[in-house]
Amino acid sequence: MLGVGVVGYGYWGPNLVRNFMSDAETRVVAVCDRAPQRLAEVGRLYPAVKTTTDPQDLFRNKDIDAIAIATPVATHFDLALEALRAGKHVLVEKPIASTSDQASRLIDEAARRKLVLLVDHTFVFTGAVNKIRDVMRDESFGRLQYYDSTRVNLGLFQHDVNVMWDLAVHDLSIMDYVIDAAPVAVSATGLSHVPGQPANLAFLTLFFDADIIAHINVNWLSPVKIRRTLVGGSKRMIVYDDLETSEKVKIYDKGITVTETPDDVRKLLISYRTGDLWSPKVNETEALRLEVAHFRACIENGEKPLTPGERGLAIVRMLEAADESMKRRGEAITI
Amino acid sequence: MLGVGVVGYGYWGPNLVRNFMSDAETRVVAVCDRAPQRLAEVGRLYPAVKTTTDPQDLFRNKDIDAIAIATPVATHFDLALEALRAGKHVLVEKPIASTSDQASRLIDEAARRKLVLLVDHTFVFTGAVNKIRDVMRDESFGRLQYYDSTRVNLGLFQHDVNVMWDLAVHDLSIMDYVIDAAPVAVSATGLSHVPGQPANLAFLTLFFDADIIAHINVNWLSPVKIRRTLVGGSKRMIVYDDLETSEKVKIYDKGITVTETPDDVRKLLISYRTGDLWSPKVNETEALRLEVAHFRACIENGEKPLTPGERGLAIVRMLEAADESMKRRGEAITI
Amino acid sequence: MLGVGVVGYGYWGPNLVRNFMSDAETRVVAVCDRAPQRLAEVGRLYPAVKTTTDPQDLFRNKDIDAIAIATPVATHFDLALEALRAGKHVLVEKPIASTSDQASRLIDEAARRKLVLLVDHTFVFTGAVNKIRDVMRDESFGRLQYYDSTRVNLGLFQHDVNVMWDLAVHDLSIMDYVIDAAPVAVSATGLSHVPGQPANLAFLTLFFDADIIAHINVNWLSPVKIRRTLVGGSKRMIVYDDLETSEKVKIYDKGITVTETPDDVRKLLISYRTGDLWSPKVNETEALRLEVAHFRACIENGEKPLTPGERGLAIVRMLEAADESMKRRGEAITI
Amino acid sequence: MLGVGVVGYGYWGPNLVRNFMSDAETRVVAVCDRAPQRLAEVGRLYPAVKTTTDPQDLFRNKDIDAIAIATPVATHFDLALEALRAGKHVLVEKPIASTSDQASRLIDEAARRKLVLLVDHTFVFTGAVNKIRDVMRDESFGRLQYYDSTRVNLGLFQHDVNVMWDLAVHDLSIMDYVIDAAPVAVSATGLSHVPGQPANLAFLTLFFDADIIAHINVNWLSPVKIRRTLVGGSKRMIVYDDLETSEKVKIYDKGITVTETPDDVRKLLISYRTGDLWSPKVNETEALRLEVAHFRACIENGEKPLTPGERGLAIVRMLEAADESMKRRGEAITI
Repeated sequence: MLGVGVVGYGYWGPNLVRNFMSDAETRVVAVCDRAPQRLAEVGRLYPAVKTTTDPQDLFRNKDIDAIAIATPVATHFDLALEALRAGKHVLVEKPIASTSDQASRLIDEAARRKLVLLVDHTFVFTGAVNKIRDVMRDESFGRLQYYDSTRVNLGLFQHDVNVMWDLAVHDLSIMDYVIDAAPVAVSATGLSHVPGQPANLAFLTLFFDADIIAHINVNWLSPVKIRRTLVGGSKRMIVYDDLETSEKVKIYDKGITVTETPDDVRKLLISYRTGDLWSPKVNETEALRLEVAHFRACIENGEKPLTPGERGLAIVRMLEAADESMKRRGEAITI
Repeated sequence: MLGVGVVGYGYWGPNLVRNFMSDAETRVVAVCDRAPQRLAEVGRLYPAVKTTTDPQDLFRNKDIDAIAIATPVATHFDLALEALRAGKHVLVEKPIASTSDQASRLIDEAARRKLVLLVDHTFVFTGAVNKIRDVMRDESFGRLQYYDSTRVNLGLFQHDVNVMWDLAVHDLSIMDYVIDAAPVAVSATGLSHVPGQPANLAFLTLFFDADIIAHINVNWLSPVKIRRTLVGGSKRMIVYDDLETSEKVKIYDKGITVTETPDDVRKLLISYRTGDLWSPKVNETEALRLEVAHFRACIENGEKPLTPGERGLAIVRMLEAADESMKRRGEAITI
Repeated sequence: MLGVGVVGYGYWGPNLVRNFMSDAETRVVAVCDRAPQRLAEVGRLYPAVKTTTDPQDLFRNKDIDAIAIATPVATHFDLALEALRAGKHVLVEKPIASTSDQASRLIDEAARRKLVLLVDHTFVFTGAVNKIRDVMRDESFGRLQYYDSTRVNLGLFQHDVNVMWDLAVHDLSIMDYVIDAAPVAVSATGLSHVPGQPANLAFLTLFFDADIIAHINVNWLSPVKIRRTLVGGSKRMIVYDDLETSEKVKIYDKGITVTETPDDVRKLLISYRTGDLWSPKVNETEALRLEVAHFRACIENGEKPLTPGERGLAIVRMLEAADESMKRRGEAITI
Repeated sequence: MLGVGVVGYGYWGPNLVRNFMSDAETRVVAVCDRAPQRLAEVGRLYPAVKTTTDPQDLFRNKDIDAIAIATPVATHFDLALEALRAGKHVLVEKPIASTSDQASRLIDEAARRKLVLLVDHTFVFTGAVNKIRDVMRDESFGRLQYYDSTRVNLGLFQHDVNVMWDLAVHDLSIMDYVIDAAPVAVSATGLSHVPGQPANLAFLTLFFDADIIAHINVNWLSPVKIRRTLVGGSKRMIVYDDLETSEKVKIYDKGITVTETPDDVRKLLISYRTGDLWSPKVNETEALRLEVAHFRACIENGEKPLTPGERGLAIVRMLEAADESMKRRGEAITI
């Protein structure tokens, strides 16, 4: 039985606690939050769980083997580092830390102490994303041509990070998982509409070495919620709509066929193919449930998780480059 | 009765001919196209209309007062210039020409000869766009914050212009009409997936002097057709979906309210407003029908059209800057 | 070259004329309509076609081999009978006639004179309906369990027939084509909201000898347009949405599995299967174009059409029974 | 503080328990269920709540003031009667009982003992249904013309009641609440596809004295989930789609205008009006939360609930008549 301590009981923390509670092989020993009224809620729902406003109580607790961190980004590094130093395995919210330097130091600390460091890139554990990955890796998909995601809604404005670190981080972690190549540069633009606050909408283009391009549109100020990703392959195309209840992933047998005319390269004949649509059943198990079980299994077997600190670091590097590009109004920055 | 000659009977030409035919005050005198089989089709449908493969036949024809040009972009300038020189009023497909220099020369020629030069920015004549313009100009909308459009589908690949000159031109002309400010710089990225051909997908960000940002996503290689624009105001927000049959324009009484804390600017309190949705009935008259009538009225009354050469020039300048930015992988280029 | 005369140039007539015109092997000789302004429109579009307000001019015309009838239902019988007696093949709008007796007499007349009598059950010629038929006939579909269609919109109110004869006739003709069994009784309910006018909304249930049931919901007074049919099979299920542009037919690998417990029939265990969704590409050729070509081929080869008078009669018998049932507030009437 | 006992912890019971727990003025004293593993789940989540397999333990418990019953329909009567006899207030799942006679006896028993008897017609407590009721009662709606609801999905098959008692009961209770008139007769048809089991799909038509008609389509064997109701008024129309997340209720300014021609009643001119669409914000508070608070308030103040036994009885009478009609294949049965 793995003893777990959870730091942060705001938006995401309750989901962590609920999933650790329902996993038969883990138990939540204690929950820490700065706000006493949130701890009171823990007490009402889970009378057996200890509550505290001091994270040190968790780090010192011998019954706790692992710490899950769901606090504001700016606090990730300190909390994760202390947890690791106290010999605890760590599951940390995305993004892993505020800077790539911090992310590297956490990776080193975990490696030195042979502790599991898992970044909560939740979408990597969804049935939909794994189905997309399978489809993209199948020969029938052809070569990847583009990845284009829109993730917009009204709220929740963050005060310590811009919308890229809050929303685009999801798309970057999905891309990092499904695309067999890493972006080499990024162009980002965006704007803040609240004086003194971080950008609340942003548009990113990621460049690859191959003929691949990726684009991400994130916005905290949209009247409608959109979670739609188009993935273009030379033979098939995917539409992933995370708001659909039953048909999240649709695969289109569509594309173009280019016929070259030997003597005149400008006279390429482009014809359009339109075939069947196929929407495969995807595993609907809650992603966090699978992630929690995976975290536990990694600890038990001493294995590297699917989303280790290294993947968190890769994403943070993209975000840092995007921040720099946004300052320079879209100038491409090498990652 | 206004005599009209139409040059180009490919994709758009038939719509021009049909609308000039159905306008009681205009008549189509002759149609010119390079392809004899297309002219044969004209003959079957409209036996009274002359057909020719030589545009000079139209320019020389005394019964023709105005020329409508629906040919590939590269030919717009020469055809429009000759038509103007022959003393004909001109309606020319978007974009007005291949370069801003060409556009300027057409404007000058038309001005010197006191001829009407109308660029076919069709969306400006739709009920939906005019409704959006009204909503945006009403005080209840608040300040404009962003304009974000997605215009993607499978095909039709153009050989002489990239996807921005084919699809984004629509969004730029709508923006130019509904926004009371002009963009000052543009950052564009994109890619071609067919060797030697122009970019088939592109992402543009347009910067303004005020706290406004615009974004356009265009793609010839999308499995699904999307025509959706989000317009954010500080008090209201608009979703314009041109594929909806009955509710193209939706107005959301949504937004954020920012409460400042005097001593700590970082402690802004952001709350979210969600009210009713309203979808006004919009005029469903075919845009081209209104445009044709407007073109005729301008000729009759010697008035400047709603979409004169000057607006065509403004759009071409944005597209030229976008082309330059795309070459530099997103570096912002002043318009 | 088949010479065709078209009687009726209101809502559907123009479609018939256009399709007969575009078929290379037929030509429209003359069009008849009571309204001179409609005939003027024919003249503008098709100067070579004769126009008349007297159908006798068509029946007497030696250049005319076949007559297409697109007039109000009440006139179908007289016009079709006269056309047949004049030795013309007949394509008649749905429903074939106002009564089953009339329908029988037309069938007899056509048979005696060896003339083709085709009822315009247009949907039978669509790619979507034929795909559905194929799916239903495949073993993988299992046994048919139900057919449930909703066909509602605002307008167009008819004055001489109720909404069943206008809208449900489509569903009945589709069912007649795709289901390998005939309904034996019908229960219908409905109401008129305009005094003295026929029912403008109606609900039909059709009973079969087997464990099949069909249901049709038709309404001229709906705020939204719906064209959706659910077809349940014991192994697969179909959703047919005729308003979808690209995915009209969706096939669900869904259903229930019933496990019997030998000693207690009440203790049946019902489990639910949910598999992939598949939307096959369907032939998008305009149905009327195929129907016109089929009509011509039947005339040339002396073959029975896919929708002969007998199918029209079968549908009229269902509608007559439904009318009787509606009068008796839903009492089942044997067909 | 109101002490509550909950009988039945299957599909709906957990929702009752959760809402009684979160209401600050009630507390769940004990939960009863036949299945020990379900009681174990109660124990894990709510360690302070007593569990038992014997409902008598709840009826005898002095700390319990009210009993909530969420068991199969066949057991409602006995459990509710015993609870009332033990002096407990009762909240019972829909439908209130298996027969109208049983329902009447429960109403009498509650009245004699001055106890609150509330039937869980949940939809009556939703923001959407209350908004619809407001719109329908406003003069701008005109006269009600029809109510047409579709409520279909795959599962959950019930063994003791047919699909009307499981799904149509929702529509009947909504109609009962929003329509200012009672149906006088019902025609119902349906079928069972599992031998020996109750009907799994059914179609009901309800007749009123006025020019109003209602129709309900329910099905446990549909590949897609639909929850859509059309409500037609002479001036406005409503579409209520309970599956929409943000725009459940849409109000259309649509309809027909009938112009009478004095001398010829058949020459009515019907014209169509199409105006704006409006989707009002609706209260999104969970219905059961409001219902639980309402139940408590009725007990405290000795008031009649919004959904008393009498409304439950009215619905059961409709269902009984529908059952009878279904046996007679749609023959209208007086309610």
